[in-house]
Amino acid sequence: MVSTDPELGSGATVLAVLGRGVVPATEPIAYADDAGLTRGDGCFEGLRLHHGVIDKLDAHLARMTRSAASLGIPFDADAWRDLCATAVAAWPHDGEAAVKFVLTRGPAATNVPTGFVTINPLNPDYPRQRREGIRVITLPRGLAVDAFADAPWLLGGVKTLSYAVNMAAQREATRRGVEDVIFTATDGTVLEAPTASVVWATGRTLTSTPLGATGILAGTTQAYLFDRAAAAGWTTQWATTTVAGLHEADVVWLVSTVRGPVDVVEIDGIAHERLPDVDAEVRALAGF
Amino acid sequence: MVSTDPELGSGATVLAVLGRGVVPATEPIAYADDAGLTRGDGCFEGLRLHHGVIDKLDAHLARMTRSAASLGIPFDADAWRDLCATAVAAWPHDGEAAVKFVLTRGPAATNVPTGFVTINPLNPDYPRQRREGIRVITLPRGLAVDAFADAPWLLGGVKTLSYAVNMAAQREATRRGVEDVIFTATDGTVLEAPTASVVWATGRTLTSTPLGATGILAGTTQAYLFDRAAAAGWTTQWATTTVAGLHEADVVWLVSTVRGPVDVVEIDGIAHERLPDVDAEVRALAGF
Repeated sequence: MVSTDPELGSGATVLAVLGRGVVPATEPIAYADDAGLTRGDGCFEGLRLHHGVIDKLDAHLARMTRSAASLGIPFDADAWRDLCATAVAAWPHDGEAAVKFVLTRGPAATNVPTGFVTINPLNPDYPRQRREGIRVITLPRGLAVDAFADAPWLLGGVKTLSYAVNMAAQREATRRGVEDVIFTATDGTVLEAPTASVVWATGRTLTSTPLGATGILAGTTQAYLFDRAAAAGWTTQWATTTVAGLHEADVVWLVSTVRGPVDVVEIDGIAHERLPDVDAEVRALAGF
Repeated sequence: MVSTDPELGSGATVLAVLGRGVVPATEPIAYADDAGLTRGDGCFEGLRLHHGVIDKLDAHLARMTRSAASLGIPFDADAWRDLCATAVAAWPHDGEAAVKFVLTRGPAATNVPTGFVTINPLNPDYPRQRREGIRVITLPRGLAVDAFADAPWLLGGVKTLSYAVNMAAQREATRRGVEDVIFTATDGTVLEAPTASVVWATGRTLTSTPLGATGILAGTTQAYLFDRAAAAGWTTQWATTTVAGLHEADVVWLVSTVRGPVDVVEIDGIAHERLPDVDAEVRALAGF
């Protein structure tokens, strides 16, 4: 059975529920009135388990703390750290795996948040995509580039569970025979991918789209990459670009936690020449 | 316990699950990898049960058929009609109740859609809001007025489960001491409310914002109202307006299935003079 969620491989899952610990993944855990299920009202994190260790757990807990605060949902980072450790202890495999933290506002009847951690095998496409790169299309997101300035109700920068449009965009990519999507604002500015940051290299400079008014998500792997790259002598910066600007960049990556940086080898049907040494260097800096 | 979902009252719930029938609402029904829970990936309908009969069930089934088709999720309207009848037969009360249909893409491990029907008591605020009206604020939605033209991946007109922004906007209204929100496009055009259509009267003309490129949801109660009003001699039309235009209209309503049309008595802190006879006539035409 092929999973419909690109961040999940098929196969056995470890499931640990907040307040309960590890439970069989074959057991339903959410009630019919859970706001996560009926309203996409909650937040999540995707994390990478690598040889028994969660990569940059603190950064994910910090981002989830911000997401939950924006949504007004209680979040106890220490309890989640413990829950994650419980789940990891129950995971029987070495190598890489995909971890997910999910927090919802909980059942309407009780207002008690629902929280759980899952661990799944790595999507088997990811190692190949890291080697061979991916083809993308660009799709308008319908949003003004500054839509999120002074508009906290739009939940800019919040990793909410309301990802229906992100998933629909990835299905559109599949229909067009490519692997992923880069969203653009109404003025043509490059924003982000449905489940990844966009980073591009020009010479020894790495750039990504500014956060804040654009509403895009602060990428934990993008941040880690920029820190490591700066220490290695790269210039790193926030700046906007357009799709034409991406075509002109030396290398373009989609950067996410579980898949890592993947080289964009085609944009809207136009091949992007690869620079394998630069790609390998950046992937290594990001820990892949 | 006060429900966090404005469409649900507190108290006992009837729950009927597709393929299973009525089950205790105290039983969890969704798995941890259900795309409805992890991605807001699915669609729903809110319906009104009134003296044992579901109002305009066919219109809701037709809209859910369109929503599910846009999302690529199988939907068997006849099976849902049966499931709804099963749930209604188990509901022990007369009067009004709030019914919800929820369909998700289902667990990533199986791709078998999850579907269920719930019946809950009417939100006790609704009868008062119908009598006394509601105060609203207007909030930018960050979207261009034509964002959804030729962009099916944005899921315009699809009643998805990804309502986190809609819920956040209603919490913003609560923070500002009012009952609801009217969303505006980046050019100031009035769009819709988080869970309702916007309808306004000028003389004997009822107007609502055009569907299609605006991405707004086709309101089943707005459509029913327009049909009945046209038969009663009103002119009905689709046209855009701004917040200034709403201030100038004779009456403005938020129109939804369970709450019905509610008179907007204040917009952004500015009182809107009531025309009780017109309000009562329109509410009666809508079946309230």
